Amino acid sequence: MTRAHNFNAGPAALPEKVLKQAGEEMLDFNGTGMSVMELSHRSKDYEQVHNEAKAGIKELLQVPDTHDVLFLQGGASLQFPMIPMNFLPDGEKANYILTGSWSEKALKEAQLLGQTKIGASSAEHNHTYIPDINTMDVDPADAYVHITSNNTIFGTQWQTLPDWKAPLIADMSSDILSRPVPVDQFSLIYAGAQKNLGPSGVTIVIIEKEMMEKIPQSIPTFLRYDTHADKNSLYHTPPTFGIYMLNHVLDWIQNRGGAEGMQKHNDEKASLLYDTIDHSGGFYKGHAEKDSRSNMNVTFNLPTEELNQTFLEKAKEAGFVGLNGHRSVGGCRASLYNAVSLESCEALRTFMLDFHKNHG
Amino acid sequence: MTRAHNFNAGPAALPEKVLKQAGEEMLDFNGTGMSVMELSHRSKDYEQVHNEAKAGIKELLQVPDTHDVLFLQGGASLQFPMIPMNFLPDGEKANYILTGSWSEKALKEAQLLGQTKIGASSAEHNHTYIPDINTMDVDPADAYVHITSNNTIFGTQWQTLPDWKAPLIADMSSDILSRPVPVDQFSLIYAGAQKNLGPSGVTIVIIEKEMMEKIPQSIPTFLRYDTHADKNSLYHTPPTFGIYMLNHVLDWIQNRGGAEGMQKHNDEKASLLYDTIDHSGGFYKGHAEKDSRSNMNVTFNLPTEELNQTFLEKAKEAGFVGLNGHRSVGGCRASLYNAVSLESCEALRTFMLDFHKNHG
Repeated sequence: MTRAHNFNAGPAALPEKVLKQAGEEMLDFNGTGMSVMELSHRSKDYEQVHNEAKAGIKELLQVPDTHDVLFLQGGASLQFPMIPMNFLPDGEKANYILTGSWSEKALKEAQLLGQTKIGASSAEHNHTYIPDINTMDVDPADAYVHITSNNTIFGTQWQTLPDWKAPLIADMSSDILSRPVPVDQFSLIYAGAQKNLGPSGVTIVIIEKEMMEKIPQSIPTFLRYDTHADKNSLYHTPPTFGIYMLNHVLDWIQNRGGAEGMQKHNDEKASLLYDTIDHSGGFYKGHAEKDSRSNMNVTFNLPTEELNQTFLEKAKEAGFVGLNGHRSVGGCRASLYNAVSLESCEALRTFMLDFHKNHG
Repeated sequence: MTRAHNFNAGPAALPEKVLKQAGEEMLDFNGTGMSVMELSHRSKDYEQVHNEAKAGIKELLQVPDTHDVLFLQGGASLQFPMIPMNFLPDGEKANYILTGSWSEKALKEAQLLGQTKIGASSAEHNHTYIPDINTMDVDPADAYVHITSNNTIFGTQWQTLPDWKAPLIADMSSDILSRPVPVDQFSLIYAGAQKNLGPSGVTIVIIEKEMMEKIPQSIPTFLRYDTHADKNSLYHTPPTFGIYMLNHVLDWIQNRGGAEGMQKHNDEKASLLYDTIDHSGGFYKGHAEKDSRSNMNVTFNLPTEELNQTFLEKAKEAGFVGLNGHRSVGGCRASLYNAVSLESCEALRTFMLDFHKNHG
C-alpha cells in the first residue's frame, strides 16, 4: 500500500498515525466493545472524547477564559448566515473585508439579513494580495468586522492579524491551528475541520462569551450560538466520529510542538515550493504577491495553458493528488495543510524542478 | 474482543461488517492511497460514494421521480427551523401533530417563525399512544402537516401513515428504513442517520421537487432546500465519511432484503421483547398502548423504582448497553434499530426472564 502525496484543498490529508489508530479502534473503542460511532453522545466514554477535544483546542490556541469553544455542523457556509442573524441588529452595519471568494460569499449572506459595508477589497486585482490593514475603513461602531484569514482559492494569507475596537470575526477554515493566533483579539473565530484538523462535518467556533449577550430572542434555537454554548455543544447529537478524529489530530499536533510547531513545519514546507517558484526564472509564476503569500495554499501558473495541463497530467501520473488550481486562478495549487508531510513537499519540489528541466 | 449488546437510543449500533470494512479501508480507499476522509468532495472517487448512497436511498425507499434525496447536516434540530423558514408563508398555518418531545420541539421552532396549530396531541396521556388519524384536525389549507413517525422517548410509532391533501412532512429520524413507507404521500421526509443508517452528522432529506418552488427568496442560501437540491448536496463540503458509512449500511440493508427485510427483522426483534413484557403478569409494564407500540424503542417499567434501578445495574454488569429510559418515561428502554442483532434481543429476553424469576 502506497499512501498518496495528497495536496487536496479540503477535505485534505490526515496524519497516517491518526488514521491507523481510528482503524484499530473501529470495532472496540476504549474497551467498550463498540465503535466510537456507536456510543451514545450522553455516555461517559464519548463525553471524555468531546471534552478532551475542547480542552485541546483551548490549550493549543491558548483560548482565554473570556471565550468558549463550540463544535457545530454545517461548515463555514452555515456560519455565513448565523453570524449576521446573531450579531447584526437593525440600524447597525457589518463590515466585510473582501480578500477572496469565501469572504464574498460571507458578505452575500449578510446582505440578505441586514446592512453591510466593505472595509477593503482586493477584488480589482483578482485577490492577489491582502490590503494594508492601516488603510482599511474600520470603525468602532461597526456591528462587527469580518475577515478571512487565509484564502484557499487565491493563496493569500493575513500575515498580521488586526486588533480593532469593533468585534472581529474571522473565518479561519483554511489556516486554523497552522500557526499561533492572538485569540483575545477576536470575538468569533470559525473553521471547518476538514483542512487542518480532521474530517468534514465538524465546525469549530471560538466565541467571546460577552458577544452572546447580544443575541436577539427571535431567532431559531439551533441557529443561536448560546444554545450550543449553554449545552457544551451537546444541545443535539454532535458529529461524534468527527470530533473523535479531531481529538486525535489535536494530540498529534500537541506532540509536534503545538501551534508553534505547526508554524515551523508549515513554513518549511511552503518555503520549499515558493523557493522553487522564485528560482525558476519565471517558469513558475506565483499568483499571490510575495508579502501576502499563504503557507497553506501555494498557487501558481506555468508559462502557457498547455504547459499547465501537461504539468497537471504528469503530476497525476506521478502520484500527486489535488494539484489542479481553482477556475478563478487557473493553473496549479498545492495545499499544504498540517498533515501534509515535508516528504510530500520535497517530492513535489523535485517533480517541479524535473518538469522545468524537461519543458523549460 | 467482545462486541457489546448495544441498545443505545442513538447514536446506536452499526453493522459489524460495515465497521470492519471501514477499518480495513482507513488508509487506502479503493486503491487511492487515501482514506475516504482525505478525498476531495469534488473527486470522482468520492462522488461515486455520494451518488451510490443517494441511489441506495432512492431504491430502498422506492422514492418516486417527483422527489429528490438530499444529504444535509445539523440533524432533525436544524430541520425544525428550516421547514417553517421554507414552507410557512405569512397568512398560513402549519399544523403539528404532537406525539412526543421531538414533535413538541419542532412546533416550538415553527412558533418562533409563523402561525401554527395543533391538529392532535397525546400530551395529556404522557404520549402513550398515537391519536386516531381520522379524528385529527387536518385541513387541505394547512401550509403543511408535521408528524413524527416514531417517538424514541415514549416508544410509540405510527402504524399507518396518513395520506392527506395538505403537504405532509415527517420526522423519521428514529425509524427511517426500518420498514417500507409510501414516500409519494409525503412532501418532505427527514431523518438523522445516527439511529438506523449510520453515524451522526448526516441528515437525509427526501423532498418533493414541486415544494421547492414555494421557497421565498429572502432566506439565507444555506437554509434553502433548493440550494442543496440544485447542487446534488455538494453546495458545500458534505460530511464525506458519514455519507460513506451510510452507503455501506445501505448495501448491508440491500443484502438483507431491503426495507421489507428490515421490517421482518425488526418485527421479530420487537416481538421477542413485547411478548416477554406481555407474558410477565404485569412485572414488566410497557409504556406505550399496544396498538401504538414502536418496533424501534421498547419502553417499560418494573413494579418499583428500586427494581428499575436494580434491573439497570444488573443489565449493565451483564454487558447490555443503553437500557436506561428517558427521564420523561423513566424505567427502561431498549432501542432496536436496524443494526441491533436478533442475538442481542434474545440475550436481553433471557436476561429479562431470569431477572423476573429472581426478583418477581
